[in-house]
Amino acid sequence: MSTVSIGDFTTEAGAIIRDVHIAYQTWGERKEDNVILIEHALTGDSDAVSWWAGLIGPGLAIDTDTFHVVCTNVLGGCKGSTGPASEHPDGGRWGSRFPAISIRDQVAAEHTALNKLGYQHFAAVIGGSMGGARALEWCAMYPEAVRSALILAVSARASAWQIGIQMQQINSIEQDPAWQGGDYYDTGSAPLQGMGVARKLAHLTYRGELEVDERFGADAQDGENPRGAFRAADQRFAVESYLDHQAKKLAERFDPGSYVILTEALNRHDIGRGRGGLNKALANITVPVFVVGVDTDILYPYHQQEHLSRNLGNLLGMGKIVSPVGHDAFLTETRQLDQLTRRFFRLAGSLAS
Amino acid sequence: MSTVSIGDFTTEAGAIIRDVHIAYQTWGERKEDNVILIEHALTGDSDAVSWWAGLIGPGLAIDTDTFHVVCTNVLGGCKGSTGPASEHPDGGRWGSRFPAISIRDQVAAEHTALNKLGYQHFAAVIGGSMGGARALEWCAMYPEAVRSALILAVSARASAWQIGIQMQQINSIEQDPAWQGGDYYDTGSAPLQGMGVARKLAHLTYRGELEVDERFGADAQDGENPRGAFRAADQRFAVESYLDHQAKKLAERFDPGSYVILTEALNRHDIGRGRGGLNKALANITVPVFVVGVDTDILYPYHQQEHLSRNLGNLLGMGKIVSPVGHDAFLTETRQLDQLTRRFFRLAGSLAS
Repeated sequence: MSTVSIGDFTTEAGAIIRDVHIAYQTWGERKEDNVILIEHALTGDSDAVSWWAGLIGPGLAIDTDTFHVVCTNVLGGCKGSTGPASEHPDGGRWGSRFPAISIRDQVAAEHTALNKLGYQHFAAVIGGSMGGARALEWCAMYPEAVRSALILAVSARASAWQIGIQMQQINSIEQDPAWQGGDYYDTGSAPLQGMGVARKLAHLTYRGELEVDERFGADAQDGENPRGAFRAADQRFAVESYLDHQAKKLAERFDPGSYVILTEALNRHDIGRGRGGLNKALANITVPVFVVGVDTDILYPYHQQEHLSRNLGNLLGMGKIVSPVGHDAFLTETRQLDQLTRRFFRLAGSLAS
Repeated sequence: MSTVSIGDFTTEAGAIIRDVHIAYQTWGERKEDNVILIEHALTGDSDAVSWWAGLIGPGLAIDTDTFHVVCTNVLGGCKGSTGPASEHPDGGRWGSRFPAISIRDQVAAEHTALNKLGYQHFAAVIGGSMGGARALEWCAMYPEAVRSALILAVSARASAWQIGIQMQQINSIEQDPAWQGGDYYDTGSAPLQGMGVARKLAHLTYRGELEVDERFGADAQDGENPRGAFRAADQRFAVESYLDHQAKKLAERFDPGSYVILTEALNRHDIGRGRGGLNKALANITVPVFVVGVDTDILYPYHQQEHLSRNLGNLLGMGKIVSPVGHDAFLTETRQLDQLTRRFFRLAGSLAS
């Protein structure tokens, strides 16, 4: 992992983030017109070949023998780019001094970073979920830089339901006493309990409800009895233990401050803002876009991708991942992702020729 | 509202609740074979003509000029029946002394109470959501007492996804410092903050996501700016204000201790337990049952009612409420409910004749 400095950054809402660094990784030899930009999701990072292991690599659909792949860590993240946990130029961590950012801020910072690294054009920008929101904003903000885009499991803007459930996640972190107004760094405690609740709620929107039921049903966790004479927090159903495990795993690898900042950015996602509304903004996108959704996605239901496909100015095609997995299928259904990505490249390539 | 005493009650899990009272209300003249038993949902009560105003009354589908309608408040509730907020025979409130109960416990207590009142048979048992779970258990536990049943927006057992999201609701109440282990009564504070979060989460599963989006989209609440330079809890999206309002309304009328006990009962809902599994238990139900679901229900998705209809031993019919409203449509879609209920009575009546 390397980092590039982009100096001071002014957000869409007018706050200044001083001395911003953006982390990135690359794979494959860089040639004329062979650069693919990969955009990660909420708790992802620049190590795209790890979290999209079946999709990016030699001989895979995003073939690093042919393409040069670049992936940055998002502004506000905690995996090398400047975020709430970073050192502030005046000392200490950013904490509560880190402003709210939008998806557009993330893309603007990334654009500056990639320009500094000499990237002017991308054969494709590809991302799912929050990465899909960024890929879509790339098309709206820098159409001259993007030859095509593959956008998975996202919408044209945050829906009220998403804002509702995501705000409960933010609140559960901010209401954890360990949050300390966002300035918990170096205090010896962190709002991991609150982030655990946030993750459990999020995870229930990331997985299909039938898939979760097929795996756990109403089973008791081994050695526990959730149907005793009195309620007891340590007597759990199997699904509770599974969610506890998801919360614990995230606590080991992610910063609650970043979780708040990035979830807030998702709430602010709105392609139509300042562009005459959603459908006009989508119609004005000239970049050829291939849209993919998941039939069982609770968080970004398939009708949202249908809405994108109906309104995008230059629709390359649309694909549906059929899977019980739900939203996370954009990460896990490797075989379908492989086929859809190859189809996207064929269509984008035939258009260019 | 009246109450009937049923003495000491032993739960399925072996705890004893002493000196139980069950509250009830009735409408219409009682005759031979004209009794309809109505079962309320989680935060409902015995005042069925209020929460099902368009469905129960003179000349309505559940016609109180013809039928005698009876509705009890559930065991564990806070609207007249014995629950955590009730006085304990040894003094003080039940609080943490109130045991965990199951849907079957609710039905067993209701059965005893109604027997005491002289009710032996019901022309129909009707309920939705938690009320549907009870109506279904009536069919399994007391088939000789039930001539027919109309069951709306419920499943044969709690799904893992339901348990997952409902457990977050329970946890948000129990982790509120004002909970005090469940013994907050008469202390001057109550876990209304925790119950508020629980209600917001629940409400997001009660309403259709498209309906919520059509009403609020990504609009800012009037006079507030949720897209400022820094996050601020008092600068909200319109949907947050809506959810805050739902939380506030519930705090004014419902006890958090009952909310925990009744949500736990929903988690324990399982028609198959001790009966050879779900499908065998359903197949053994001889009562004619009419099943209704809502096409946009997030909490009890329609495939769960399809599962009921495929496996019930004596299916009278099935109906789908088509509505953007989601789960709550079983309360709000009066016109469709009217038609479905009349159809249920026609089918049940032709069967009896």
